[in-house]
This record gives sequence, structure tokens and C-alpha cells, in this order.
Amino acid sequence: MAIALKDLGIAAKTIGVDANKEHAKKAIELKIVDEVKDLEEGIKEADLVIVAIPVHSAEELLPKIMDHITSQVVMDVSSTKETIINSIKNHPKRPRFVATHPMWGTENSGPEAAVKGAFTGKVTVISDKDHSDKDAVTLVEDIYTKLGMRILYMDAASHDVHAAYVSHISHITSFALANTVLEKEKEEDTIFAMASAGFESTVRLAKSNPAMWTQIFMQNRENILDVLNEHISQLRKFKACLEKENEDYLEELISNANKIRKILK
Amino acid sequence: MAIALKDLGIAAKTIGVDANKEHAKKAIELKIVDEVKDLEEGIKEADLVIVAIPVHSAEELLPKIMDHITSQVVMDVSSTKETIINSIKNHPKRPRFVATHPMWGTENSGPEAAVKGAFTGKVTVISDKDHSDKDAVTLVEDIYTKLGMRILYMDAASHDVHAAYVSHISHITSFALANTVLEKEKEEDTIFAMASAGFESTVRLAKSNPAMWTQIFMQNRENILDVLNEHISQLRKFKACLEKENEDYLEELISNANKIRKILK
Repeated sequence: MAIALKDLGIAAKTIGVDANKEHAKKAIELKIVDEVKDLEEGIKEADLVIVAIPVHSAEELLPKIMDHITSQVVMDVSSTKETIINSIKNHPKRPRFVATHPMWGTENSGPEAAVKGAFTGKVTVISDKDHSDKDAVTLVEDIYTKLGMRILYMDAASHDVHAAYVSHISHITSFALANTVLEKEKEEDTIFAMASAGFESTVRLAKSNPAMWTQIFMQNRENILDVLNEHISQLRKFKACLEKENEDYLEELISNANKIRKILK
Repeated sequence: MAIALKDLGIAAKTIGVDANKEHAKKAIELKIVDEVKDLEEGIKEADLVIVAIPVHSAEELLPKIMDHITSQVVMDVSSTKETIINSIKNHPKRPRFVATHPMWGTENSGPEAAVKGAFTGKVTVISDKDHSDKDAVTLVEDIYTKLGMRILYMDAASHDVHAAYVSHISHITSFALANTVLEKEKEEDTIFAMASAGFESTVRLAKSNPAMWTQIFMQNRENILDVLNEHISQLRKFKACLEKENEDYLEELISNANKIRKILK
């Protein structure tokens, strides 16, 4: 996002703040940010503060960030919304905060995972916009529009339910699939050699950052448990078909899954 | 494969045989094959017969194809090997058959799903080659080499175990994930709008052909059940972590899944 803000002329200058000194250095080297500062200095100099850190850290740090701002706008880009928003619910500066979730990411993290043009054509969510100042929302909307994103408005609770379906559960199934294959298949060379595009696409997300995803799963645990229970019961239907050699029902389950074609291009 | 055989000058002429008349017509229109004939005529005129049909049909049709050949070579490209090979185990023409599985495919099927250059850089398996005539194996090896594929040799039983891990289970998890989301998420517009690349990649295979995959799952059911049981127990570990808010073990499970990075590029 920092790259895009400079490239599109939205930001005259970008300042990075990072707990990891190696990452901070790398971000300068890769020209992702112009400068690196500590949090307080960074906030002082900024017009807009973008909080892009793991969600437990965001929950903890956001009230402190709000303590430091005067009239700046603060936005987050977290994969959960309810806990983040609740962390500053009664903060006097709450209206300067805009809760967002741009729906783009890869399995990689750190400064070297930055991708130019990443957000173009994707969707972003803005949550509970009525609790934010109008000028703050306008600034954030303007940025996402310039990034080429489509904005969806959704209350925080709805966002978290939908994110469990279309993002969080995919990560759990992918992690579990990797663990399944690593547990059962002791001939790693054979996995490596035989793994085709289908396997790679279902297991790609299993390469994702453990700290980041542990925190997302914990913050959205009730919604995720709900979807995960359903998912296990769907897998059990496949298991029952195989055990009972019920070919007709197996084909019905697969035909039903094909309906996803209508929803995804 | 028919496109590649012509493009690379391996085949002077390709003849299509298809149970589906619309597909046969389309294959000519799309210049995938030069001619369409019925099975007997096609075999009579061919030097090489490639059996590329759903695995129940292959099991049923292969003995009949072998009845019709004189000195032609017959190869299959099926996703299962043991049942297919067993269907002609005692056939007098068995040595003219070479069992193969090129590890490439997409979620699409039918003539319009043909992709130029599909096999280049991918792996193919040849099973039980000692039961095939040397000249037949050489012909098939030569074709796969010209297609740019790396050949792995594996007995049929091992192939079926490994295919369950690196291909079949991915399809089951993807079908079950699609059914989960379709069951739980009634706001289809929201899935459509919010679904990001991560979701699309884990659910892509759920668009795959029901008849084709039902038959693969049934033929390889014992291996798949074994992997599926492990997969459900891996998912239960995630579930237990969320229920007990065991963040440390959750992070450990994810870190373990990350080991797939060492195996897949």
C-alpha cells in the first residue's frame, strides 16, 4: 500500500514504523517507505496513519495510537473488525478512526512480500462508517478509489461472519491439508515430484505466517468454529459415501459443489 | 494431448472417438482432432490408442479395446492405476498396454477445456512398465519426453497411494469447502463480492466434473478414506484449539503446516 500511495501521488512522503529492525531496513532498501521512525515521531509527522500489523497487536496498539493523534486520520487494514473497533469504542478520538479490510493478500509476509498494483480491481470493506468523522471516511474512500478498489460497507459483526466464510476457513483447510500430507506421506520427494497445480492451489495458503493467522483465528474464533463445524460435517458426508460405496450421493455432493461456478467466475 | 501430438509432429493424423456427439463435433471445429470415427474403425486405423475417459468407463472399455488391436500400442492417462491395469491383467494383449498418468489438469472438461502446451514441465507417471512390451514403453516414453514431461516410474499400488495424497484429497477438501460455504452463506452476493484470491484458489477444484471425480474417488476409495480420516483429525485439532483458546498449540499447528514450503516451491 505504501508503494501505491507514492506511485499514485496520494502521499508526498511515507514513513515506516516497524517492530522488526531488519524489516524496517529492508523496507527502505526496497524503497517501500521514504523513512523509518519510531511510533510517536511517525504519528506526529503524519496526516494519515495506516495500522497494518497482526490483529492482537492492533488491538493493543490502536488505543495508544489514538492517544497520540491530534487531527490525523487513522485507518486499519485488519482481517477482523469487531475486536479492533471495540478496542477504542469509548476513546475520545474514535471518530478519527476508519475501520477497513482490503481483501488482498498472499501467503508471504514482510517487506519482500510487497507487490506493485496489488489492490487494483479488488474489493475493500469499510465497517461502521457512521462512527467515523465524515472527512476521515472521505479521505479513506478517496484512497481506496484511487487504488482501483471497489468499496463494500458492512457493520463489523457482519464483516467478521463473512470473512470467516470467504477467507479464514480457506486458511484452516489449507493448513490442515498440509499437515495431513506431511503426516501421512513420508516420501517427501514423491510429494514434491507428483504435486500438480491442483494440490499447489489448495495448499498454497498453508505457507502463511503463523503469528498473523493464529491471532486472526483467535479473534474471530466463534464465527470460524461455526464454519469449521459445518466443514467437518460436509467432509463426513464424503467419508460416509466412500465407506458405504454410495456413488449416487457422492455425485450429488460434487454436483452441488459445482454451484460455486455460478458465484465465482 | 491431441493438439500437442500434431503440433510437435509426433502424429501425422489424429482420430477422435467420443461418446458425446456434441463434443466430437466441437473437437473437429476446434481442430483438436483431424477426424472423428467410431471406436472400432478408429482403433483399426491407429498406431497408438490413447484412452482418456472417466475411470469406470476405462475399466469397462479397456478389455474391449485390447480385443480389437493387432500390434497397436494402447496407453491410458487415468488418475487411478490399479483397477485399470487389473481390468486387462490376464488379457493376451496386455503387453501392448502402457499405464500412465500425466499429472496435469484443470477444473474444466470437454473439448473447450483443451490447453496448448499443457504438459510442458510437468510430471507423468508410468506404472508397472515391466508388464508392457519394450517397444510400447519406448514409444510412450518418447512421446512424454517430446511433450517436455519428466517421467516417474511407480508400481500401480504406490501410484494410487500417492495420488490420494497429492491430488484426490485436494479435490475432496475443495468440494467440501464449496458445500460448506454454499450451506452456511446464504448471501451469495456477499461471497461473490468479498471472495479473494485465497478463497478462489482453495475452492477452484470444486468446479470439477462430477462423473469424472465420483469414479476416481470410488476406484481409489480405500487410499482416499485413509487420507480423509487423517484430514478430519487434523481439522479437529484446529477445532479443539479454538474451543479451548489454546493459542500456543494453534500457532504450532500452523508452523508445522509451513513446512510445506520446503517441499513445494
